[in-house]
Amino acid sequence: MPVSDAFHIYDTTLRDGAQQEGLNLSVHDKLAIARHLDDLGVGFIEGGWPGANPKDTEFFARAKKELVLKNATFVAFGATRRPNVKAADDVLLGALRDSGAPAVTLVAKAFDRHVDLALKTSLDENLEMIRDSVSHLIAEGQRVFLDAEHFFDGYRSNRAYALEVVRVAAEAGADVIALCDTNGGMLPDELSQVVHDVLTASSARLGIHCHNDTGCAVANSMAAVAAGATHVQGTLNGYGERTGNADLVTIIANLELKKHQLVLPKDSLREAFRISHAVAEVTNVSSSARQPYVGVSAFAHKAGLHASAIKVDPSLYQHEDPASVGNDMRMLVSDMAGRASIELKSQELGVDLGGDKELIGRIVDRVKEMESRGFTFEAADASFELLVHEEMIGKRPSFFTIDHWLTTVERSEDQSILTKAEVKVTAMGKQISCSGSGNGPVNAFDNALRTGLKALYPELEVLELTDYKVRILEGRLGTGAVTRVLVETSDGKGEWNTVGVHENVIAASAMALEDAVTFGLMRQGRKPE
Amino acid sequence: MPVSDAFHIYDTTLRDGAQQEGLNLSVHDKLAIARHLDDLGVGFIEGGWPGANPKDTEFFARAKKELVLKNATFVAFGATRRPNVKAADDVLLGALRDSGAPAVTLVAKAFDRHVDLALKTSLDENLEMIRDSVSHLIAEGQRVFLDAEHFFDGYRSNRAYALEVVRVAAEAGADVIALCDTNGGMLPDELSQVVHDVLTASSARLGIHCHNDTGCAVANSMAAVAAGATHVQGTLNGYGERTGNADLVTIIANLELKKHQLVLPKDSLREAFRISHAVAEVTNVSSSARQPYVGVSAFAHKAGLHASAIKVDPSLYQHEDPASVGNDMRMLVSDMAGRASIELKSQELGVDLGGDKELIGRIVDRVKEMESRGFTFEAADASFELLVHEEMIGKRPSFFTIDHWLTTVERSEDQSILTKAEVKVTAMGKQISCSGSGNGPVNAFDNALRTGLKALYPELEVLELTDYKVRILEGRLGTGAVTRVLVETSDGKGEWNTVGVHENVIAASAMALEDAVTFGLMRQGRKPE
Repeated sequence: MPVSDAFHIYDTTLRDGAQQEGLNLSVHDKLAIARHLDDLGVGFIEGGWPGANPKDTEFFARAKKELVLKNATFVAFGATRRPNVKAADDVLLGALRDSGAPAVTLVAKAFDRHVDLALKTSLDENLEMIRDSVSHLIAEGQRVFLDAEHFFDGYRSNRAYALEVVRVAAEAGADVIALCDTNGGMLPDELSQVVHDVLTASSARLGIHCHNDTGCAVANSMAAVAAGATHVQGTLNGYGERTGNADLVTIIANLELKKHQLVLPKDSLREAFRISHAVAEVTNVSSSARQPYVGVSAFAHKAGLHASAIKVDPSLYQHEDPASVGNDMRMLVSDMAGRASIELKSQELGVDLGGDKELIGRIVDRVKEMESRGFTFEAADASFELLVHEEMIGKRPSFFTIDHWLTTVERSEDQSILTKAEVKVTAMGKQISCSGSGNGPVNAFDNALRTGLKALYPELEVLELTDYKVRILEGRLGTGAVTRVLVETSDGKGEWNTVGVHENVIAASAMALEDAVTFGLMRQGRKPE
Repeated sequence: MPVSDAFHIYDTTLRDGAQQEGLNLSVHDKLAIARHLDDLGVGFIEGGWPGANPKDTEFFARAKKELVLKNATFVAFGATRRPNVKAADDVLLGALRDSGAPAVTLVAKAFDRHVDLALKTSLDENLEMIRDSVSHLIAEGQRVFLDAEHFFDGYRSNRAYALEVVRVAAEAGADVIALCDTNGGMLPDELSQVVHDVLTASSARLGIHCHNDTGCAVANSMAAVAAGATHVQGTLNGYGERTGNADLVTIIANLELKKHQLVLPKDSLREAFRISHAVAEVTNVSSSARQPYVGVSAFAHKAGLHASAIKVDPSLYQHEDPASVGNDMRMLVSDMAGRASIELKSQELGVDLGGDKELIGRIVDRVKEMESRGFTFEAADASFELLVHEEMIGKRPSFFTIDHWLTTVERSEDQSILTKAEVKVTAMGKQISCSGSGNGPVNAFDNALRTGLKALYPELEVLELTDYKVRILEGRLGTGAVTRVLVETSDGKGEWNTVGVHENVIAASAMALEDAVTFGLMRQGRKPE
């Protein structure tokens, strides 16, 4: 059930978020993100600028046919009519009207200098453009919001005019006037004062639209709400041009958990972690591990000091229960890890170290030594678990030995590319030679290895390489770079992560893949040789 | 010249920042970062916890010998003495005293529940530990600051006790009591009120130490300063456990540019971009492109609408002059780029399109088509420039044609790894066969190509591959993944970036390297064939 109209969570990921450097959304991507946003329970989804951008026109056409929203209302974004034409004759306004979106957000200039230099029209004509455009779309049956662009800069420059923009838009029937910190230079104290003053000077319903150029987009949005704004614009994960827009995930969690103001449908906040990461998959922008509430590090503890206290009571070192946003507490294994972290981490993985101090000490030492060579176990639980087993039983769990491998990639004169791998492996007392091809040398190696082993271990059929990351670590060894490879593997029921480090990327990949297959066989219940 | 003692910028990158997941600093790294911090002009550098951590003990010993600081004072971090011993007999306090650091920050519990559950001592003994430890180190000649841990949670739980911690520490001679939002759950409104109340209730000089768990670390720090705190703790680039500490770079820029409060030596702020990125090189944590002020995207413009206005006046769309922090405005070329962005970008690269509308339209179309296949020109100016030349002169600038290539990586039974590449290339009418080896297939390919071409183009001798990034783009083509490779090349005078996209990583790399060498030859003044 949609939440009350009294407070709006208004998402502009698909429009303002898509302005981020390196972010490029297809219509298919936009539809997928819209589904996630509706799942999260935002009130409004700004889909783009139909008419100005063919991709956005197509988005609204397809959204109307393909999406049934549970919670959200679609909003089309566009500008007020051009100077000196009638709203009814303006082609771009027509496209907004024809988009089929139940609501429209019109961006209007609220800063006198922008009217003069960018819009190149008179201050009076700008007001007329606002009045005419808002009235026209309302008469055509759409709900209208107004984005007052550069409002805060305008308020500093010509307070009376900025207020007149708000007054005219409200009088023409705009439901919300969103005050935009377009260039993002505001700090909470001044912003809060301006929102308060505008509310005092007008009867308009106010919204807020912040960017993060001073690192205060979230705090500015919270300050505006405290001052009386009842409509908050932002983007999932804070995507946006320059330093990004205000991160709606953080704002929502702050409002619900810190201010006890419920702005999503019941229990939706628990989906925040899942949805934030699902959208990151679609945008293909790596999630920030340090993102508040939903970052993978947001409830991760590394310091030995903290780990000991957490054994007593997790709430001593957590500002909220991670489950409230669908996140988890994690103990990190690193060269700063003490014995307590290693014990807790092993416990999390279901391995009982039985309080064996000498064993725990050996594991701590191995981790420190390997991390100094470029390994990282924080993102490679499965490789860490193999290391723990190795220290417990005195040898590394193993189902096979790779004796030899060769990968080749060749481009011939006709431009065709041939990728091959050959692997010799010994398992159950037999040496097997096998080969594979693929769309790259690592893929070919993976195919060859699994093809060879499948005859002996048919359960390998279900394994799939689901993620592959390469990081070049400069000068970790003093001489030249080493390459770290992280591999994620799935058996359809769950995923596990392994790591390999070598100066040669294929050798590092081979190491991570060997761990991945070994761990996969253990997961299927096989006992190592 | 160091800035006045009346306001402290206090950096804890080397201690609290190093708690970040994935961050791992050697003593050598810490010394390098300390030099950068001193260059930036911070007042205090917290170097670590000597005595608790052998690496930190070594850091203080080496810092004393190897570093001459222009601006900063070193601070050793540690805890108040253990319960029920004398400060003079406490081994860890002894290590702080013996570190040679002119100042010490002692962390003390200010939250009654933590005293009880984590410290397992009485509330009175905790106060005694503070009094005794502070007095002892002052008597030994060190300046003492106190970090009041979990202060804000403590203030909610037992206000009188939290205030007593501040009072006792100040009375014992601590110069600054830093109120720590250790779990990071605060918002600016409440935090500001508490700082104000504590200042009213005590005569202590207050500092602030924030974490970013509500996305408000910077705003909380600014609010504390507005309420009267005169000592701000944070880390370079906001490194730190969980969601990170308050980012000192943003706080400093906000204070100097927005609040006109000078906290660094004159003109130091202009070094912020360089130092932020130099430290990121040392920590080996990728810089956030969206970091306020110093992110590479912080003053980058993509929207066609903005680009047109920026042609009129850059200040219309910028909250500050990017040069004030050593950053630059950048125009981004993308599928959202309009004609204005392409014109401005070409101008930035020194290519005059002469206002040729048909040419500009062709370039816009090519960019959109290639970006839809996975290319990105935002981070590959040199490949974009080659594309512009291609559209201007009707063919792609070229000095050679690669006819055939082959890369192999083999691990033999003795575990040794052999990496080879063979390349056949035609240049100046001759076909040349050449081979190379390297620590990976791309490195071998690069060596083979340049070895072959050097006979004809000796200027290739100075070219060096300085960065190499791989990104796997899932399902961009509907079928399977494509790989995008970005290569940075240097000729000792400057760097340029090129891009290649292919389902095979070696083929994508070959494409980016071909552009890199072609562009390098053009830079040296060669005319294409």
